[in-house]
Amino acid sequence: MNEKTVHKFTYGLFVLSTEKGDSYNGCIINTAIQVTTSPNQISITVNKQNYTEELIKNCNKFNLSFISEDATFDLFERFGFKSGRDTDKFADMSNNDYKLSGNGIPYITKGTNAYISAWVNQTIDLGTHTMFIATVTDMDVLSETPSASYSYYHANIKPKPQALKSEGKVWVCKICGYVYDDAKESIPFEELPDDWVCPLCKHPKSDFELQK
Amino acid sequence: MNEKTVHKFTYGLFVLSTEKGDSYNGCIINTAIQVTTSPNQISITVNKQNYTEELIKNCNKFNLSFISEDATFDLFERFGFKSGRDTDKFADMSNNDYKLSGNGIPYITKGTNAYISAWVNQTIDLGTHTMFIATVTDMDVLSETPSASYSYYHANIKPKPQALKSEGKVWVCKICGYVYDDAKESIPFEELPDDWVCPLCKHPKSDFELQK
Repeated sequence: MNEKTVHKFTYGLFVLSTEKGDSYNGCIINTAIQVTTSPNQISITVNKQNYTEELIKNCNKFNLSFISEDATFDLFERFGFKSGRDTDKFADMSNNDYKLSGNGIPYITKGTNAYISAWVNQTIDLGTHTMFIATVTDMDVLSETPSASYSYYHANIKPKPQALKSEGKVWVCKICGYVYDDAKESIPFEELPDDWVCPLCKHPKSDFELQK
Repeated sequence: MNEKTVHKFTYGLFVLSTEKGDSYNGCIINTAIQVTTSPNQISITVNKQNYTEELIKNCNKFNLSFISEDATFDLFERFGFKSGRDTDKFADMSNNDYKLSGNGIPYITKGTNAYISAWVNQTIDLGTHTMFIATVTDMDVLSETPSASYSYYHANIKPKPQALKSEGKVWVCKICGYVYDDAKESIPFEELPDDWVCPLCKHPKSDFELQK
C-alpha cells in the first residue's frame, strides 16, 4: 500500500463551531460534504481528541464556516493550534470577524465565503473519529472568493519552513505544516508519547519530519 | 436559505467501480473522503438511483479511481451518462485504460492519478443516498497529475454550451453541465416526470436551464 495515495483526496477547509457553556468553541476540519439534497444533509467527521467533538455531542448543533482563499494564517492558529479546553478561542476575537446565526452559534465572517448551520440527526462512531450527519437549518453565501482547498492552504497560506529559525530542533508536520519547535516547548519532540498527534490535523507523530 | 451555499463545497471526482455478475460496473461520484487513519477508512455516498449502489450492497467491495486534471470528457460520458442496467460500461473499453486490482475489480488507469480498493464495513441509509464506510485494502498512486476538483471539471473538462447546435431546445444542468437535447431524445425535457434527475450528477430537474 502506498501511503501517499490519501494525499490525492481533494478537501475543503472549514471552521467548525459550536456552544461551550455560555461561550463558544471551534476547530478546523477538512471533512465536510453534502450527502443528500432532499432533505439537505451534510456529514462532518471530527477527531475525538478535538474538544469540539465532545461539545457537539452535548448540544447536537454546529456551524460550518467555509474557509476561502483570502484567509490568513492567524485563522488557522486561532482555531487549529490550541485546544478549547484551555482557552476561549472567541474571547479576544474582533466582533467584526464573526456573527451569531439563528441557532445562537457564531460563524466566521473574515477569510470565509459561506456558512451552514446544522442540526445533528445521526452520530456514527468510527473509532478515532465521530461522524455527524446533520440537517441544514440555515445557510448563506458570504463572498465570491473561491473556497480554499487543502492543497491551496499548503501552497499559499501555511508558513514556509525556510522562514523558521530556532535554537533547537524544529519538526514540521508533512500533512498540514504545523511546526513543533523544541526550543519553544517544554518537552522535546522526540520525547513526546507515541500516541501524540498533530494539534492541527491530528495526524500521528510519524507524519512529522525534522526540518533540514 | 441561499441554495448557492452548497456550491462552495470543494469536491474531488472519482470513478466508483464494482462487480456486476461476471462483469463490472462503475459510476462517477464526488463524495469520497478519508474518515479515519487508524484503521484507514474512507466514506463514499452514492445515490440509490445509481445501479452501482445496488451492486456494492451485494458484494461489499469497490474500487475508487481518482480522476485527474488530464481526464477527458469521454471518461465522464462512459461512466456518468449511461446506466449499467442497460449497458456494459467496460465491454468496449480498451484494456490499456483499466487494470484489475487484487480484489478482482477494475480501476481506471487513464485520466486518473490514484486508486483505492476498499471493503464495506458499515452501510448507512440516508434516504435518497446510501453511505458506505469502508476499510482500505489496497491503494496506490498512479501519476503526479493533480486531482481534478469539481470546479476544475466545470471550467476545463465539461463541454462549453456555446459549442452546441441543435434543431430543438437544449437544456443544460447547472450543476454538472449535462446536456439534454430535445432533438436527440424521445421525450422533450419539459415532459419528463418531476422526479426525473440528471443522469450524471443526480440533481433534480429544477437544476436544468434552457440554453439561450
